[in-house]
Amino acid sequence: MSADSPRAHSTPANSFAEDALLAHIRTTVAGAEHVLVGPGDDMAMIRVGNHQLLAAKDFLVEGRHFLSTASMAQIGRKAVTRNISDVAAMAAKPVAILAACVLPRSITQASAQELVDAISRTAAHFGAPLIGGDTCVHVANGPLTISVTVLAQPLEGVKPILRSGARTGDQLFVTGALGGSLTKDGGGHHFTFEPRLEEAHALARLLGDDLHAMMDLSDGLARDGARFAQASALQAVIIAEQLPCTPACVQAHTHANEWRGALGDGEDYELLFAVAAGVALPATIGPHNTPITRIGLLQALPSSNDTTLVCLHNHQSVDVSKLGHWHDSI
Amino acid sequence: MSADSPRAHSTPANSFAEDALLAHIRTTVAGAEHVLVGPGDDMAMIRVGNHQLLAAKDFLVEGRHFLSTASMAQIGRKAVTRNISDVAAMAAKPVAILAACVLPRSITQASAQELVDAISRTAAHFGAPLIGGDTCVHVANGPLTISVTVLAQPLEGVKPILRSGARTGDQLFVTGALGGSLTKDGGGHHFTFEPRLEEAHALARLLGDDLHAMMDLSDGLARDGARFAQASALQAVIIAEQLPCTPACVQAHTHANEWRGALGDGEDYELLFAVAAGVALPATIGPHNTPITRIGLLQALPSSNDTTLVCLHNHQSVDVSKLGHWHDSI
Repeated sequence: MSADSPRAHSTPANSFAEDALLAHIRTTVAGAEHVLVGPGDDMAMIRVGNHQLLAAKDFLVEGRHFLSTASMAQIGRKAVTRNISDVAAMAAKPVAILAACVLPRSITQASAQELVDAISRTAAHFGAPLIGGDTCVHVANGPLTISVTVLAQPLEGVKPILRSGARTGDQLFVTGALGGSLTKDGGGHHFTFEPRLEEAHALARLLGDDLHAMMDLSDGLARDGARFAQASALQAVIIAEQLPCTPACVQAHTHANEWRGALGDGEDYELLFAVAAGVALPATIGPHNTPITRIGLLQALPSSNDTTLVCLHNHQSVDVSKLGHWHDSI
Repeated sequence: MSADSPRAHSTPANSFAEDALLAHIRTTVAGAEHVLVGPGDDMAMIRVGNHQLLAAKDFLVEGRHFLSTASMAQIGRKAVTRNISDVAAMAAKPVAILAACVLPRSITQASAQELVDAISRTAAHFGAPLIGGDTCVHVANGPLTISVTVLAQPLEGVKPILRSGARTGDQLFVTGALGGSLTKDGGGHHFTFEPRLEEAHALARLLGDDLHAMMDLSDGLARDGARFAQASALQAVIIAEQLPCTPACVQAHTHANEWRGALGDGEDYELLFAVAAGVALPATIGPHNTPITRIGLLQALPSSNDTTLVCLHNHQSVDVSKLGHWHDSI
């Protein structure tokens, strides 16, 4: 999983279609008996003896995921928390990270150390020590680029939650509030968010088999919600008025249009999850009493070429297919 | 592990000292009971239930590891084989890879597909299917950057071989021949090398506990040999006249100076290994009859601030501390 932005464009660079590339990857990847979950979910999963191991990998690239004004502490923290958010999406437990950095030629020793300190400190905080990686300096000018790989194991007694387990009639929920993650100066929630790890564990333990599917929101609900439904060959129906919006999102949108921000803004790092019809949920979950909100449901896809996400506003379907960030993981 | 170059510099960019950064990382990484091997070896190793899992991560950056004239097939293959070489260095068995690509804005759909096809094909060839990753496009101009993570398991009945297991009096060997990996046009062995996976397995099975330590050579023997000895707090003594040189290396050096290429050129992707004193080895190893050559020995480090690598030429010690590539992994 990975998110676009801060300077994210709502259309891909040139005529390059990342979704087409990703679809291509999924078709060409050779299966193997020990691969339990391949490309396309928040994390891949392999069998190690009689155990399961999950792995995910994300990039953080200057200009795309942070501006040059960001501090090394912010960048290092975000490089790790984005990956921990993927672990949360599977309701799994992070165990280790590897980090690789391509450094600009102008970087100072102190800055580079601050960066790795932030990576190491954040990783240790989530119980996933930094165990290895790679570093090199750009030959010519080039952006600071960090790739983090996170390894995880299933939580005891909890099967990892895939994107693809949703069923017709499932209720759709999100944790927290959406939108406004990026402030005009390049800062904001996308640097400070807490991955919803404890919330995911609490949900998995509370709901058991009634928690059908889950993912984390990084490219905006409009786009990620469509992918989420697609993974189960269903159609998501989102009720705009039910979307929980952050104060920053409300402030950025006038005329009660904040639901557009909740759908279109990226880097929420909240959980989107599908729960069996009829199951009642509490208003909050986990040790921090994080709100959970029902935002819609999943229904059968009317036809195979239909959009997998429909948004209703004032009981009318509105086109949100241009919202969300055009960027993805494999 | 990772290698520098084609355009590698023998000194770091500006005053930035990567070795100092790496040393810093090693001191700040918090240990954990399930981390069996942390930063500093070819691969890290964690405990997964009662099994061991190894992981390594490498970058491939345009300008540093390949030129813009390289084909996507060459780049994709090298991104994977460099990581497989790390698996060979541990005498382990690759099981899966994750790949993340930051693509230049000018890339075409066809080129991007060729790249992922080459990654996927090479990974599958080594029994390590591509199970996930990430892709994004640079916002501004930026070099094609690929990060591959490889996961591995111990070979049945074989304990992973660390760098740090060497003992005083051990014999030092290398597989294959060294130097001349990079041709003037940017091509050469660094694109076509076969990771010494089968050779590593054959060595581990043949030698058992007499195979004390192993690493793969990516930054040149002068630099990597010094690191190798340092990992066991020993001093490597290399006999220049015994170094096996590739034809390309011989051709590039006049006046019988090819040993300088064997010590200084990077990206050999051969194995450097330490074998108990007195143990006789065959001239070749593995299904391809790969030559193995004794190039020196390991001895006690005279004092803690001594160089960990000494090279003898004509029975005289020569300073090779400026040879090799200034770049490393954590």
